[in-house]
Amino acid sequence: MDGFVMNAKEYLKKLSSELDGPIRSYIADEEPKNLIESSRQYPYAGGKRMRPAMVLAACGAVGGRTEDAMPLAVAIEYIHNFTLIHDDLMDGDEVRRGMTTIHVGYGMPTAVLAGDALFAKAFQIMADMDISGEKLKEVMQYVTLSVWDLARGQQMDVNNEGKLVPEEVYIETIKLKTSVLFAAAAAGGAIVGGADKKTVEAIHAYALDLGLGFQMFDDYLGVAGDPKKTGKSAGNDLRKGKCTCLITHAMRTITDEKDMAKLKSVLGNLDATDEECAAATEVLRRNGSIDYALSLARDKVESAKSRLGVLADSEYKDFMIALADFAIDREV
Amino acid sequence: MDGFVMNAKEYLKKLSSELDGPIRSYIADEEPKNLIESSRQYPYAGGKRMRPAMVLAACGAVGGRTEDAMPLAVAIEYIHNFTLIHDDLMDGDEVRRGMTTIHVGYGMPTAVLAGDALFAKAFQIMADMDISGEKLKEVMQYVTLSVWDLARGQQMDVNNEGKLVPEEVYIETIKLKTSVLFAAAAAGGAIVGGADKKTVEAIHAYALDLGLGFQMFDDYLGVAGDPKKTGKSAGNDLRKGKCTCLITHAMRTITDEKDMAKLKSVLGNLDATDEECAAATEVLRRNGSIDYALSLARDKVESAKSRLGVLADSEYKDFMIALADFAIDREV
Repeated sequence: MDGFVMNAKEYLKKLSSELDGPIRSYIADEEPKNLIESSRQYPYAGGKRMRPAMVLAACGAVGGRTEDAMPLAVAIEYIHNFTLIHDDLMDGDEVRRGMTTIHVGYGMPTAVLAGDALFAKAFQIMADMDISGEKLKEVMQYVTLSVWDLARGQQMDVNNEGKLVPEEVYIETIKLKTSVLFAAAAAGGAIVGGADKKTVEAIHAYALDLGLGFQMFDDYLGVAGDPKKTGKSAGNDLRKGKCTCLITHAMRTITDEKDMAKLKSVLGNLDATDEECAAATEVLRRNGSIDYALSLARDKVESAKSRLGVLADSEYKDFMIALADFAIDREV
Repeated sequence: MDGFVMNAKEYLKKLSSELDGPIRSYIADEEPKNLIESSRQYPYAGGKRMRPAMVLAACGAVGGRTEDAMPLAVAIEYIHNFTLIHDDLMDGDEVRRGMTTIHVGYGMPTAVLAGDALFAKAFQIMADMDISGEKLKEVMQYVTLSVWDLARGQQMDVNNEGKLVPEEVYIETIKLKTSVLFAAAAAGGAIVGGADKKTVEAIHAYALDLGLGFQMFDDYLGVAGDPKKTGKSAGNDLRKGKCTCLITHAMRTITDEKDMAKLKSVLGNLDATDEECAAATEVLRRNGSIDYALSLARDKVESAKSRLGVLADSEYKDFMIALADFAIDREV
């Protein structure tokens, strides 16, 4: 297992470094400077670059040349970054990737415009790709639907803030917020690589499940992870009242009134003490809610990997499998 | 002249009513409801719909079937409306088309997301168009560049607020903010209609000039128009310190110190009295700055019309000419 984990992280790093030049090549020096600078900030700063790596891997895994998928990889990363700029503005977050967020550094109007500009640039890059018009149409259909869905997911997140929602609403929200762009990236890479419809759909399904598993494991880490490693203070997800799959499980299975009271006293309570959070976490553990989240994440990752039977062996397929394993075997 | 004006307005109304059904057909009832409602609000409420009308007219004028251009017309209108939602948020405007703006009615996050969602939907509609992949690429290249440029223009507007800028900066800003999407709409319609490259470029140049003329005449109306008809209170543009072509002209031509003082005392001064504004307007009139704006607008409209020599006679060509005349012969 450990070998695979190393592999996924290292291979991701390798792909990320190949992406670095292209990501810096599409936004020319133009006026006005503050718009150009602010739209460059997030994509240039790095991040995990999992989505563009997925574009390249999917293209390679179906026998395509990864260079051909490079523009799409950049476009997908720009789209991801445009959503981050707007997300940070909406959430009022002040720091990302070690720098002040765009709305803090440049003001709200520039954050709105830098996001819009990156979005436009992403589609401009796609329109200029050296692929057939028919392939472009197919890629566009996946990508545009994913951005529409992403906005729906973010809106659901805004609407559900501080609410306890049913598990199907939770899953729908993380699917729309996280998985759909991931899946569009993978499908797009496969289309550019020349995959047939069945293979494109299998790879799309793989990435959709992988995204879900990744997010569920994030939720698990948020409560059960080591704060020193995750960088998130213990109990943070509880205090914020994040309605994750741990909480949806707890809400429908805890029968003991005292246990339920302990949990509810910290959920969405920013003033909850570390001791109260630890007690609530213990309730979740005893109730099996933490194991439940882990098992959900594992199921999704197994489901994701099972989709890859359509692919011939290759380093790219190995990476896609390793990335799935990595999704649920990490400390941060 | 009057006949033409009536014609342009009536024909625009006719095209707008043909657009109404299609504009209402692409945003399905989905969750979450507040995102769907808010993204529908501006496009459903109407407006002049000049951009989508331009798509249809350009398609018809090159011999295409206007039905074929209907999806692109809707997409262009969605893009225009996405920029309005974000613009209203950035400017803090509270009313549009007789309703509260999105950020006022639904909050800032929903305004950001409704704009993003409309933008995504616009490209989704384009990707689904029943045209060849090659045509799609061409259309996309015009449209994506125009949205990128639009963001640049809006940023310039933000940056230049309250500043006196040189005339070339003023013209570049209104070109990017207003004309480029207009021009992309016209070029896109012509491409869908099957025009050759030369014709597409001529129609693009026509709409670019028309957009400039339209905006320059708006600036003229803002100072010289009848407040009862424009709906804008007299002196508003002066009090806001809008750096229009009237002002750039005045700044480089007024030699009398008292006149200059009268003008500068109201520019960007929200407390300026109606009398002070009237005196400044009189300075502009006496100095020829009002006539100058009118002559600039007229030149642009003449230039726009001169591009249409490539087109055979048709009702659509007539409309495009009438629309150009209407741009500088209106009271509102």
